[in-house]
Amino acid sequence: MADYTQIKLDIADGIATITLHRPEKMNAYTGTMMNEMIDAFDRTDADDSVRAVIVTGAGDRAFCAGADLTPSDGKHVFSSGDTVEDLSDPRVRDGGGMITLRIYQSKKPVIGAINGAAVGVGVTMQLPMDIRLASTKARFGLVFARRGIVPEAASSWFLPRIVGLPQALEWCMTGRIFDAEEALRGGLVRSLHEPEDLMPAAIALAREIADNTSAVSVAMTRAMLWHNPSLSHPMEAHRVDSRAIYTLSRGGDAAEGIASFLEKRAPRYPGRVSSDMPSFYPWWNEPGWE
Amino acid sequence: MADYTQIKLDIADGIATITLHRPEKMNAYTGTMMNEMIDAFDRTDADDSVRAVIVTGAGDRAFCAGADLTPSDGKHVFSSGDTVEDLSDPRVRDGGGMITLRIYQSKKPVIGAINGAAVGVGVTMQLPMDIRLASTKARFGLVFARRGIVPEAASSWFLPRIVGLPQALEWCMTGRIFDAEEALRGGLVRSLHEPEDLMPAAIALAREIADNTSAVSVAMTRAMLWHNPSLSHPMEAHRVDSRAIYTLSRGGDAAEGIASFLEKRAPRYPGRVSSDMPSFYPWWNEPGWE
Amino acid sequence: MADYTQIKLDIADGIATITLHRPEKMNAYTGTMMNEMIDAFDRTDADDSVRAVIVTGAGDRAFCAGADLTPSDGKHVFSSGDTVEDLSDPRVRDGGGMITLRIYQSKKPVIGAINGAAVGVGVTMQLPMDIRLASTKARFGLVFARRGIVPEAASSWFLPRIVGLPQALEWCMTGRIFDAEEALRGGLVRSLHEPEDLMPAAIALAREIADNTSAVSVAMTRAMLWHNPSLSHPMEAHRVDSRAIYTLSRGGDAAEGIASFLEKRAPRYPGRVSSDMPSFYPWWNEPGWE
Repeated sequence: MADYTQIKLDIADGIATITLHRPEKMNAYTGTMMNEMIDAFDRTDADDSVRAVIVTGAGDRAFCAGADLTPSDGKHVFSSGDTVEDLSDPRVRDGGGMITLRIYQSKKPVIGAINGAAVGVGVTMQLPMDIRLASTKARFGLVFARRGIVPEAASSWFLPRIVGLPQALEWCMTGRIFDAEEALRGGLVRSLHEPEDLMPAAIALAREIADNTSAVSVAMTRAMLWHNPSLSHPMEAHRVDSRAIYTLSRGGDAAEGIASFLEKRAPRYPGRVSSDMPSFYPWWNEPGWE
Repeated sequence: MADYTQIKLDIADGIATITLHRPEKMNAYTGTMMNEMIDAFDRTDADDSVRAVIVTGAGDRAFCAGADLTPSDGKHVFSSGDTVEDLSDPRVRDGGGMITLRIYQSKKPVIGAINGAAVGVGVTMQLPMDIRLASTKARFGLVFARRGIVPEAASSWFLPRIVGLPQALEWCMTGRIFDAEEALRGGLVRSLHEPEDLMPAAIALAREIADNTSAVSVAMTRAMLWHNPSLSHPMEAHRVDSRAIYTLSRGGDAAEGIASFLEKRAPRYPGRVSSDMPSFYPWWNEPGWE
Repeated sequence: MADYTQIKLDIADGIATITLHRPEKMNAYTGTMMNEMIDAFDRTDADDSVRAVIVTGAGDRAFCAGADLTPSDGKHVFSSGDTVEDLSDPRVRDGGGMITLRIYQSKKPVIGAINGAAVGVGVTMQLPMDIRLASTKARFGLVFARRGIVPEAASSWFLPRIVGLPQALEWCMTGRIFDAEEALRGGLVRSLHEPEDLMPAAIALAREIADNTSAVSVAMTRAMLWHNPSLSHPMEAHRVDSRAIYTLSRGGDAAEGIASFLEKRAPRYPGRVSSDMPSFYPWWNEPGWE
């Protein structure tokens, strides 16, 4: 669709598929790939026809082998040539965090279909996705401590929310490579599939969402579930969901949701994420770099 | 006991049982049921003889089929007839959150015995309970996105604490109905039981608490475990538990706890929740609606 | 090594082993043991040769049977003879929290090898450790509510992060003693081992860390994973890890990490925790008692 060089974006039947596409480099992450992914998520958010986003890797070897460490990319993603005096300089920003913060803000559900090796940012970019499925051939490594660096891409915030603190500590402190079974047992992925069954399973989940739910409801639900658990008291969540229930229950999607339920038929929700989010959305202040 | 019309409250041998009681309506939730449940929790908190509360549903079909969507109830729980200009108006408050915030504040442990279908608020009302057991016949649905609304009852705060964020996202974004086995695997309930074994298992857990523990200890423990994990540093929990250990270790329940342990006999704790909570309880400011 | 009376500290091949050593008292916790443990963690932090710390108990019966409740110790850990008027008096501080807060601050990874009975503070002292392994003979009890007191040692903050809130509530509200299998199912320990295989398994994990990772990376990773999940937004973690990636990727450990990876050989990281932590570490304000 767009003029991308390191990813592909395909949109069909309400499902957008973003494919990391440097198969000759095991889809290693670069600054170009980062910018193209951010642009793709801007498009999927703006396109009301998109009800779910699947992220996968090209080829049968890798999902994403991590940051490109070879000189061919000109400069390393996590080590630009510039030297800064002030660590609050925006050039200090980690390129992995740029993409995970963008995925975190997605208005559409994001499904990771992990088709092969996922190492470093190849794992951490999965964490702000909502659902992760993997091929039985996938393997994983939070290898940062074996490279003399640290878990990046805000993964110290994301990873314990996905797999729990003890598993996060063990994987990040050993830096070990682990297989798909260990990823499943540890809660990093929700199911394993034979390689040829992986994309069908991801598409089935995307369809389950697209065919049955209100897009506005899902966008609100996604923001609430990622934001509200950090609140210190459930009353704060009650303030948000009360306003949402009050507003949405008077809207077209709720009328259609109840009507289609009582009439036992498939729903046709009129609401659009681009125009029909409640007036109080977003209800939080999105923090900047500084 | 009390003059309730949509629930029953029975108290015997230190265990209170609240039964949602509209079997002809699959125990669907109404404003009346909400008020009666709040009143029942006020009673169980005030009654020192009550050591644990069990919540279940009448009949063999449903625990609670969700908010009553039929006109017979006069108005919908999540859509009162009033229209307000200001979203901070208390009439905007969601009726599901009114009950989950009340259960959250309970001084007595709360055990959910999920005997059948639990949908919408029928699931979210379970989340502030401490222990959930289910019948093998139970099924569950966080169906909000299929009705054009959002997860309510402060469930965006509660649900990730119970089942983890990934499972919360998948159940709320698909809105699917799932069976008891999926609820068990996902951590929503701690065990499954044949229908006739469900209440005995819930009572056995209630007895395990009632027969062995100090009521004051359990009330303090409940408040600490629900409140303190939101603190940003363990030092803040240390400030609370140090004061509690200091105060309680000089009291009658600690003397009896140690004496009964050393004498290998059942304890008879003198402490009462109504009069013997530490002077610094509650140690937090309970937030209001605004 | 040191002049300890109730613990032993052994350091060999980069691994420090702290052994709770009152086998005739089931390694029950005392004020002396607390002070010696704190001193031992000060040593392991200061000693750059130490890459991991293992904590275990002497003998084949107990890891730690809890606070010493017998008069032989002169005074109870949780009930000193002093009476204070002001609950902010430092003498009110709980002795369990003194050790868990110290372990929380460790710069080296901490592995618990739970060799036998662990009750009360014998369980809660494990919670700020990073990895917990247990003997099949181990058993556990968060028995506070059965003694008329409450979970101490900041465990209301730690325990839900380790085992999740529902399991924390059930174990603390019943106060039951549970076996190694229940501990494994509940997520308190990550694996079970025959008694003779426990220390070899703990040492293998310590070696996996020591032989493959940068000490500075692990110290930073440990601090990030314990601190950053409490932040309210992933941007705050991005600010920390961006600075860390920027700084460390220009350092000697990153150069060695990438070189050893590309050359497929064991790494020899030059960095030292005592001198080479990033200038912005620690990036948080450590709170005091008041």
